[in-house]
Amino acid sequence: MIKAKIIGAGGYGGVGITELLLRHPEAEIGCLVSLSDTGRRMSEVFPHLRGFCDDVIVSPDDPKNKEAYDVVFFSTPDGVGMLSAEEEIARGAKVIDYSGDFRFGSVERYAEYANFIGRDPIHKTPALLNETVYGLAELHDITSTQSIVGNPGCFAVSCILGLAPAVDAGIIDTKSIICDCKTGVSGAGKKPNAAFHYPNRYDNMNAYKLAGHQHVVEIEQELGLLGDSDVQITFTAQVVPVCRGIMSCLYATLDGQTADDVLEIYREFNRDNQFVRISDAKTPASIADVRGTNYCNLTVDVDQRNNRLRIISHIDNLMKGQAGNALQNMNLMFGLEAGMGLANPGQYP
Amino acid sequence: MIKAKIIGAGGYGGVGITELLLRHPEAEIGCLVSLSDTGRRMSEVFPHLRGFCDDVIVSPDDPKNKEAYDVVFFSTPDGVGMLSAEEEIARGAKVIDYSGDFRFGSVERYAEYANFIGRDPIHKTPALLNETVYGLAELHDITSTQSIVGNPGCFAVSCILGLAPAVDAGIIDTKSIICDCKTGVSGAGKKPNAAFHYPNRYDNMNAYKLAGHQHVVEIEQELGLLGDSDVQITFTAQVVPVCRGIMSCLYATLDGQTADDVLEIYREFNRDNQFVRISDAKTPASIADVRGTNYCNLTVDVDQRNNRLRIISHIDNLMKGQAGNALQNMNLMFGLEAGMGLANPGQYP
Amino acid sequence: MIKAKIIGAGGYGGVGITELLLRHPEAEIGCLVSLSDTGRRMSEVFPHLRGFCDDVIVSPDDPKNKEAYDVVFFSTPDGVGMLSAEEEIARGAKVIDYSGDFRFGSVERYAEYANFIGRDPIHKTPALLNETVYGLAELHDITSTQSIVGNPGCFAVSCILGLAPAVDAGIIDTKSIICDCKTGVSGAGKKPNAAFHYPNRYDNMNAYKLAGHQHVVEIEQELGLLGDSDVQITFTAQVVPVCRGIMSCLYATLDGQTADDVLEIYREFNRDNQFVRISDAKTPASIADVRGTNYCNLTVDVDQRNNRLRIISHIDNLMKGQAGNALQNMNLMFGLEAGMGLANPGQYP
Amino acid sequence: MIKAKIIGAGGYGGVGITELLLRHPEAEIGCLVSLSDTGRRMSEVFPHLRGFCDDVIVSPDDPKNKEAYDVVFFSTPDGVGMLSAEEEIARGAKVIDYSGDFRFGSVERYAEYANFIGRDPIHKTPALLNETVYGLAELHDITSTQSIVGNPGCFAVSCILGLAPAVDAGIIDTKSIICDCKTGVSGAGKKPNAAFHYPNRYDNMNAYKLAGHQHVVEIEQELGLLGDSDVQITFTAQVVPVCRGIMSCLYATLDGQTADDVLEIYREFNRDNQFVRISDAKTPASIADVRGTNYCNLTVDVDQRNNRLRIISHIDNLMKGQAGNALQNMNLMFGLEAGMGLANPGQYP
Repeated sequence: MIKAKIIGAGGYGGVGITELLLRHPEAEIGCLVSLSDTGRRMSEVFPHLRGFCDDVIVSPDDPKNKEAYDVVFFSTPDGVGMLSAEEEIARGAKVIDYSGDFRFGSVERYAEYANFIGRDPIHKTPALLNETVYGLAELHDITSTQSIVGNPGCFAVSCILGLAPAVDAGIIDTKSIICDCKTGVSGAGKKPNAAFHYPNRYDNMNAYKLAGHQHVVEIEQELGLLGDSDVQITFTAQVVPVCRGIMSCLYATLDGQTADDVLEIYREFNRDNQFVRISDAKTPASIADVRGTNYCNLTVDVDQRNNRLRIISHIDNLMKGQAGNALQNMNLMFGLEAGMGLANPGQYP
Repeated sequence: MIKAKIIGAGGYGGVGITELLLRHPEAEIGCLVSLSDTGRRMSEVFPHLRGFCDDVIVSPDDPKNKEAYDVVFFSTPDGVGMLSAEEEIARGAKVIDYSGDFRFGSVERYAEYANFIGRDPIHKTPALLNETVYGLAELHDITSTQSIVGNPGCFAVSCILGLAPAVDAGIIDTKSIICDCKTGVSGAGKKPNAAFHYPNRYDNMNAYKLAGHQHVVEIEQELGLLGDSDVQITFTAQVVPVCRGIMSCLYATLDGQTADDVLEIYREFNRDNQFVRISDAKTPASIADVRGTNYCNLTVDVDQRNNRLRIISHIDNLMKGQAGNALQNMNLMFGLEAGMGLANPGQYP
Repeated sequence: MIKAKIIGAGGYGGVGITELLLRHPEAEIGCLVSLSDTGRRMSEVFPHLRGFCDDVIVSPDDPKNKEAYDVVFFSTPDGVGMLSAEEEIARGAKVIDYSGDFRFGSVERYAEYANFIGRDPIHKTPALLNETVYGLAELHDITSTQSIVGNPGCFAVSCILGLAPAVDAGIIDTKSIICDCKTGVSGAGKKPNAAFHYPNRYDNMNAYKLAGHQHVVEIEQELGLLGDSDVQITFTAQVVPVCRGIMSCLYATLDGQTADDVLEIYREFNRDNQFVRISDAKTPASIADVRGTNYCNLTVDVDQRNNRLRIISHIDNLMKGQAGNALQNMNLMFGLEAGMGLANPGQYP
Repeated sequence: MIKAKIIGAGGYGGVGITELLLRHPEAEIGCLVSLSDTGRRMSEVFPHLRGFCDDVIVSPDDPKNKEAYDVVFFSTPDGVGMLSAEEEIARGAKVIDYSGDFRFGSVERYAEYANFIGRDPIHKTPALLNETVYGLAELHDITSTQSIVGNPGCFAVSCILGLAPAVDAGIIDTKSIICDCKTGVSGAGKKPNAAFHYPNRYDNMNAYKLAGHQHVVEIEQELGLLGDSDVQITFTAQVVPVCRGIMSCLYATLDGQTADDVLEIYREFNRDNQFVRISDAKTPASIADVRGTNYCNLTVDVDQRNNRLRIISHIDNLMKGQAGNALQNMNLMFGLEAGMGLANPGQYP
């Protein structure tokens, strides 16, 4: 059994990977670490886990946190993983980090990102940047030799999976891309906040961070690598009164392709991507179709009149956008089938 | 493998048991029957099932519906199951019916119920009433000799589980019971309706059927059997802007017992009931703790000042209140462990 | 024009009375005071007021706060009003306080309440307790001689209006009362809180404060005065995913009266209460019918079988449960028509 | 007093104008007509109106419908208004039609629209097309000589107000426009529908009508007239779990202008438009700011890096997107102040 440690267990990212590990046939939870809920049982913090995960959450300086585990999930904000990942790897663990710390393959790219989000541009463990990979298995080969992975941002997953086939095929103008993205509230995490106080959020929606969202950097990096050209997107983050789910409408100027051409390209690109499902514009689609699952559903459409690609990308921000994708990475890093413990259609309604 | 047929597959009760059977280790779906979505794939009707259940839904007169199955779920309104159950049993199937058709153990009791809901009081297959059992394993022994079960109503599950220990122990006045019950909207089924049209339901709540709710009859029957006395409740059905979940506040006059006395009685009664979890009044509880699961969480409280029992009963109306409980019954009817395929904490948030 | 000062302008109670005063023909806003949003325009804190109320919110020690106003609304927690009310009255103002500070007519009763909520039982300005009145015009004569009013709690309004006619008529056993009350989230105020964080509140409901809710004291006081006997209720506070609205189901044992008897008593009691609307159990009712308005809609029902009164009381907790009722009090304290500026049906959907 | 008749009183558009007329100082309701709720009081259909509008809804062939009124609101689907408008005008009424029947100024344009939505392209009263005007006072002079107005579509209002200043100033490429529009559910009307059944709509969002939305035609017409050039937009309609509100993100390629340049253009264009409020990208904005009001709030932003205009347009689809705008038109058609009965900030939260 793969023994897992979860750092940041008290947040949504932590409980998400906990739920998934509880039903994974080859993994088990070894240690739950958190700053905020230290000393409480996991099932006190998350009562639905009563009888399933009654382990006590320990503080970072608890001896249990110093033991060796096979895999360590850092469900933590920027700057935490980079301080401890080296040590965890030295103890024999594989590391999956949810933040931006290990999403960039060079100190330069990391500095660009860090500047963008207003953090110190100097990475604390630059050597690891050579070893890490952007943790999206649909774009990168993630194998059992991989010791560290930077799990992608939720908006980034929805945009990159939605645009990768078109960029890869060279059919769109990479300067014309617009990503109009709507997220559910859980993407902002568990900490209460005026913007997500129920009376302010029900029957409401708004755009935010118009000056620039942190996920733009990784979207441009990944699509740029794929397209072998500079990609510069316009990105609008919006929040709607939904708990789970991201729906991104992605637009770009085509070079004359029809919807059928593009559908063929998208199907071909995703032939081996079990968690990407392609539909045409006539098939009804909604985020309910992916809620609670690791799927990314893409509606492929062309506005022929305006020669414009339109992709609607649907994910569950806490699954393919976070914990589900992290588990997919874990599976690959341990040589397991990518979908182990993830082949689950969710519940409706 | 247990081969299952689901009649009424296109509704919430049908998709619920489908989801559960898909992950059950000893059962598989053999046939999906529905009047409304005949000829469509299950995954067209419920797109989240794409790749998991792409079977075509057949009409009742399809030859496939006449084949033999090991278990047949009637996820159908009152009056449907009683017309076909005999035939299914004759073909070797065990029958689990979601309606009121098989919840009553005698023609007299059935007639009382049928009159209450305004249906013909003559049961179509009275012989089966001697064989059926009220399908709540916490009250009745359901074993592999059982060929037919009347799966209980959702409100009834929440009220009966919440009151049974007290009635059984004889500590409450059975004429003093008040059941104040709030349900999510999914309890009303999949068919659109003015009362559940989103603009009329968001930010709204209301009581309904004040003149009498159909689940009252079975609650009074089951508690009456347990208490060996007449039980006559006041019952208020209410609907709130929630999809899944029932929260019932249950009140009754005590005979001087303290909260500790009552807690002990409730814990003892449920010692072997794996899906009932007991808490005291100081432990926070909400329907989110049981969402998507087969659990019934009971908060046990006594208003000492007024010598009054107060139980807060929490279930997912589509799980312990419907499909989850149906699967629990199936497990027991086939000699399997009651919780097979049901030991799942759900997802949060 | 009546010049009003609002203390606690930055909260829901403050913005509520602001909205009402803006459309009141005989009153205007003179001063907005708050601890939390000092120095910001009201329309920055509440952007919907842009162009309607762009006044700057001042701190309590701002000279503007020391000027004379005709009426002062204390939209503040317990303990604030009692420190300044005397001074405001001395300057010539009438005072309307939203907290429990002035809801009780004697130091003994105040002490009982204060003990219940864990505050110092010694009232700071006991002399004012002789002058104050419980601010529910349906029960008390509020006239232009009144200088101070204790505006009632939201749950209390729904329960007292729902039970007063029955208690007054002496038709119920005052020891048998059960108040099962569901509130929207806005009742908890504007401050973010884990329990009301959108992902924790959507699709969820729960009971809380089972050990005792602060509004119980005033309900028992007011009904006790009316019934000339001790009233001792069982009260269950619950919160559902609604922004505005309280629905209280009120139960009590009758002395043989029929629904028609009780309807007659309720209609008679409320003959002159323009904001109380009575319906029988056959008329559909919901909190949407009172959203955004000062009305209390009562559904009057009798469970004949159990000889039990059942009243469903519907209010908007921020209107008849708070600011609307406060304005009604202001109108009466200035000799104006009770409904001035309040005769508004709200918006649907 | 202006005597008004409302055809289609039983729908959201009908109740919206009813609520507004009830508080309008110069107008009153003379007749309520509907096919669906004939014979019922308006306050039975919409219980919040009890005591405010208890008039009986009459059928179209009721004599009352043949009497003369000063203004007639057709809150009806396409094809209804064009059959009766002439007759109403002949009787002396001014007509305001909510459908597409009178939004187009020539038979050719109407035919283009009718073909787009799959209706008979022959207009039934072509002569009226010369007299009608597109009812958006921010673009067209609407005066007391006007006898008929085509009230605009809700999405169209949000897009046209958001783009008009830029098109008018000639600063954007009119072939580069993308309108990414999210609406609340009330936009789809009162009739229950599977897509808006609460369990299918809560926690869900989706795009729809990708092949073409009927409002595209009028957006292109109005912007084309303004820009004196062909306008061809990409339009994506989306629905989110909100009751009231539209948020449209509007993108177009600029000619090098900065955010300050564009802000100046937008402020200048709207100098006399009391219901359009302009903000820069640093000011928080959401649809809650306009809920229940006739305002359109525009956030003006430029993505300098990509030389792209980004406007976020916020309206209440039932107010500025329907009944509120209709009342604004009525005011102007009767020589009243445009904002009479509309200067209302709404309620929060």
